[in-house]
Amino acid sequence: MAPAACTVRHARQEDVPTMLALIRELADYEHEIDSVETTEVHLLATVAFAPAGVESTSTSPNTEPTSPTKPARCLLLFNESKEPAGMALYFYNYSTWRAKAGIYLEDLYVKLSQRKKGYGKRLLVELAKEVVAMDGGRLEWSVLKWNKPSIDFYESIGAQTMSEWVGMRVDRDGLTKLAGLLD
Amino acid sequence: MAPAACTVRHARQEDVPTMLALIRELADYEHEIDSVETTEVHLLATVAFAPAGVESTSTSPNTEPTSPTKPARCLLLFNESKEPAGMALYFYNYSTWRAKAGIYLEDLYVKLSQRKKGYGKRLLVELAKEVVAMDGGRLEWSVLKWNKPSIDFYESIGAQTMSEWVGMRVDRDGLTKLAGLLD
Repeated sequence: MAPAACTVRHARQEDVPTMLALIRELADYEHEIDSVETTEVHLLATVAFAPAGVESTSTSPNTEPTSPTKPARCLLLFNESKEPAGMALYFYNYSTWRAKAGIYLEDLYVKLSQRKKGYGKRLLVELAKEVVAMDGGRLEWSVLKWNKPSIDFYESIGAQTMSEWVGMRVDRDGLTKLAGLLD
Repeated sequence: MAPAACTVRHARQEDVPTMLALIRELADYEHEIDSVETTEVHLLATVAFAPAGVESTSTSPNTEPTSPTKPARCLLLFNESKEPAGMALYFYNYSTWRAKAGIYLEDLYVKLSQRKKGYGKRLLVELAKEVVAMDGGRLEWSVLKWNKPSIDFYESIGAQTMSEWVGMRVDRDGLTKLAGLLD
């Protein structure tokens, strides 16, 4: 299905309230709203934005440089009425075997009222275009295992399920404990 | 177990042959040596290095800036004889719920002849220190599910297994196909 008419561009600082609303809606959808600590101030400090007035797309970023403490970029999708309908929040990954950078999609969200229009696919295509444009290695993301409809959709557009791998995470108290383990 | 005497610092351009040897040894260990396309030239173009002569550590990076096409950093561990014994190759990730950057460890490797000295733990502690120093959110990596000894070790130092998630990947032909899906 070709997506309904829409436009996609990088988020600007003025879009921070829109981003936060989408992030909160996604968290609510995942029954995780209490886990959201993010505020507008946090987003301004940690996301690389496009300058005001610039129609920056995935293949012509023209955004702030990324850095260790500002590694994230955000694509926003606007529907035919120019209303924000979805977003892709991502950072840059690395493949050691190929020595190539690529993209890790941290969060993909399309508003409930804007589903079934191909917007999720459009955002994934934009990210694939950026990886190709940078001669990158791979586009990756994670999905909850129970979310079979999403996994089926992702496989239908060419994604492989990395079922032989499992993620490990250290955060919060675990992080300070690990940092001090040898002191 | 406290690690045997060792030093850890960021890789410099002069370390590229050492890095490539460690990457090839890791690939060989994983029976994936034929998948390694990486050369010294590739590494020079895609890794952010510390300047020559600088003893840059994880908490005082003092390295080249990272960028979308140069997202990776590499810590090298040298044993008591000053020989390279292991490495941690990583990039910066992002937590949307907390709007915090962090570290994704792409590859951790300790030479077979240098195992059982606590060097893997030392490298993980260095990365946790960098995440804490940047007020970051989380340190993450992936492990092959069959590698139970590694998973047990990671859990013993405070890592959680993210068993409810599965990774998705688009690369090579799949990437160009996805990029052109809506053309």
